[in-house]
Amino acid sequence: MPDSGNCYKPCLLMDLLGRPYEWIEVDALNGETRGAEFLQKNPAGRVPVLEYAPGAYLPESNAILFFLGRDSELWPEDPAEQAAVLGWMFWEQNSHEVWIATSRFGLLFGGATAASEDIIRRREPGLSALTRMEEHLGGCSWFGASSISLADIALFAYTHVAGEGGFSLDGFPAVRSWLERVAARPGFRPMRRGKRPSA
Amino acid sequence: MPDSGNCYKPCLLMDLLGRPYEWIEVDALNGETRGAEFLQKNPAGRVPVLEYAPGAYLPESNAILFFLGRDSELWPEDPAEQAAVLGWMFWEQNSHEVWIATSRFGLLFGGATAASEDIIRRREPGLSALTRMEEHLGGCSWFGASSISLADIALFAYTHVAGEGGFSLDGFPAVRSWLERVAARPGFRPMRRGKRPSA
Repeated sequence: MPDSGNCYKPCLLMDLLGRPYEWIEVDALNGETRGAEFLQKNPAGRVPVLEYAPGAYLPESNAILFFLGRDSELWPEDPAEQAAVLGWMFWEQNSHEVWIATSRFGLLFGGATAASEDIIRRREPGLSALTRMEEHLGGCSWFGASSISLADIALFAYTHVAGEGGFSLDGFPAVRSWLERVAARPGFRPMRRGKRPSA
Repeated sequence: MPDSGNCYKPCLLMDLLGRPYEWIEVDALNGETRGAEFLQKNPAGRVPVLEYAPGAYLPESNAILFFLGRDSELWPEDPAEQAAVLGWMFWEQNSHEVWIATSRFGLLFGGATAASEDIIRRREPGLSALTRMEEHLGGCSWFGASSISLADIALFAYTHVAGEGGFSLDGFPAVRSWLERVAARPGFRPMRRGKRPSA
């Protein structure tokens, strides 16, 4: 699905690794992910889903990153670094995506405004997540490993469009520099964008 | 911290593996996780944190499970099964813990009641998570692998006390059977419980 950070994650990984893949469009906004055919691929009714062999499907964006990237330089060899990379990826799902991505979804597709209760409620924890990233980047260039890793891919996806969720990055210069480091990697391609209703 | 499902996860894993560990009490309810000494161990200010070597710390309960269990029979050898196990662990953090554990925390420690807005708001997505588990267990005995894995440990922690979050398991017989299968494993020990204000 265009505009989805979770769908962007595996694409970004494969682009950085220079590996081919096929993007199959699924229209989540029009209920396609709740249809019988899709639910056979992912009973949770969510994109992305990786078809890693004919008829074999893997859901959950960060699990897909592990599966596709575990044999690459974006998955460190040291078990403690592997665990730290996974730690940031769990944190992304529990303490970042649930505030920033969901605010963005509400504003882009859910008819919410900056004054909506659901948006206001997510503001403080979303800012806390960005603050946590800013503090971490004060002492490190990357998340969890000494070079770019799967954790950076996972966190880039929704952080680089946080502004669309009402979270300006003006006060987060280290986060902005890190975003630029990721976007400067060979092979980098931006997130796919869908059609928008004209404002 | 007693009563914390996230703190229980690594204990349950080590108990099932028959491996020794030391539990160091941290009083999150009285602000100890926001103190300078603790923030050096986990700048996110949350328990649990694993000290895996003197002065070396790893936060995030599910990352700790990976680190401690990656060389055990609870981490499958097949990469697709590994990814499926991680997928359920990411799902636990994004689609289960954020509804069920947080409702439970509010009711046990946050002064919330069943009529609180924060509890009511979490009811439908929490029930959806349990329904998703029930459906999965209709066709499988475990989550992500053909035998018990780290995903079962991660999901057991807050599911077995879902009732304390206002989520009765009466309508989820397959979930109850799965909980019994986990609790019947050799070495199983229940979650530590803290003192409660008398009702």
